[in-house]
Amino acid sequence: MKITVLTICPEQFGDFARTPLIARAQASGLLAFEVVDIRDFAPGSFRAVDDSPYGGGAGMVLRVEPVVRALEAVRTPSTRVIVLAPSGTPYTQKKAHELAKAEHLVLICGHFEGMDARIWDYADELVSIGDYVLTGGELAAMVIADSVMRLVPGSMKAESVREESFEQGLLEYPQYTRPADFCGKKVPDVLLSGDHGAIRAWRQQEALRLTRERRPDLLGETGAEEES
Amino acid sequence: MKITVLTICPEQFGDFARTPLIARAQASGLLAFEVVDIRDFAPGSFRAVDDSPYGGGAGMVLRVEPVVRALEAVRTPSTRVIVLAPSGTPYTQKKAHELAKAEHLVLICGHFEGMDARIWDYADELVSIGDYVLTGGELAAMVIADSVMRLVPGSMKAESVREESFEQGLLEYPQYTRPADFCGKKVPDVLLSGDHGAIRAWRQQEALRLTRERRPDLLGETGAEEES
Repeated sequence: MKITVLTICPEQFGDFARTPLIARAQASGLLAFEVVDIRDFAPGSFRAVDDSPYGGGAGMVLRVEPVVRALEAVRTPSTRVIVLAPSGTPYTQKKAHELAKAEHLVLICGHFEGMDARIWDYADELVSIGDYVLTGGELAAMVIADSVMRLVPGSMKAESVREESFEQGLLEYPQYTRPADFCGKKVPDVLLSGDHGAIRAWRQQEALRLTRERRPDLLGETGAEEES
Repeated sequence: MKITVLTICPEQFGDFARTPLIARAQASGLLAFEVVDIRDFAPGSFRAVDDSPYGGGAGMVLRVEPVVRALEAVRTPSTRVIVLAPSGTPYTQKKAHELAKAEHLVLICGHFEGMDARIWDYADELVSIGDYVLTGGELAAMVIADSVMRLVPGSMKAESVREESFEQGLLEYPQYTRPADFCGKKVPDVLLSGDHGAIRAWRQQEALRLTRERRPDLLGETGAEEES
């Protein structure tokens, strides 16, 4: 798999590219991670990537031309192009699984007050990592790259993924490790029992209880649905 | 405002601390941004921060003791403690505004398969940046810090924030900048008209249209509600 990020802030991806997940995947040949500076594709000696919005308003807007030129330079017939924007479709674990099957992902990061809306026409989809606004799309691109890469076969154990939040439509059950008693806070007895059937049942119950308490929306609109 | 991140991967925050938003806020005295290595608070010569889960299962779990010790070292009476976890309450722009008023935020990043659930007892709240799973809470902490810091008075122009996605319960209207014609794709005429009333009306209409198309959930459950 190849992931290409188009950004005006390539310097923000240094630490990210060195995280174990990305660095190991690159070293083992599972991943090619590439960061392309949109500025290199801006015309003129000033290489301006932004300009003021038509119709007035605060701030600057990312220009369409350098983004499209950068995209043309990296795109192949199998490329899937994603624009990161607060107005995109909310990103979910299901989408992460879908993107993990792609051969080549291009992630286009907005910046400034936003991007020229004509850039949207060149993308397969607009994706938002959540209902909040960031300085730019760079952190969003890292979130997508991280969540996708860890699902690519070979980069994580399948068992770990299966038990995580959202994989079964539920939040994950609570985890505990040593010590069994920390300042009077004790690990639930069942986890120390060695009874694997009871442990499995307790974990399923707890996953359901936590989901009902914190995210009834994941269980259905009213949050009152029963699974047992 | 002060933001303290507790993490076992402090090296991941170097580029982030150098982004203009954070660096400028620090230079101007608006922000103290601090990254604390949980490992420094782990006992023993191995300084182990993780251990295998009680009850069995894949992977390792972040231990409660070093996290609580690190928290005790940085906590003051005005500290608001947030644990980043996929099982937390979904983060929104509204929460960003709320956190932007805090004096001191502590963001605790999980890692490995998860964290000892007793850590939750020491937090004011559990927050999730979206319904997907990341390698660790580090990117989530950056997302919170970025989205909060840009709302702190003095770090951005109020006008910019007011017109953004989610601020009025709608997605932002499309933006355009030069050229007026790019490969046959034209900027809507109204934006070139100079008629500020018409521009304002068009933008309101477009914000509503985009929201209805892409995020009917923001307008109400059926997506059929009218504002006009």
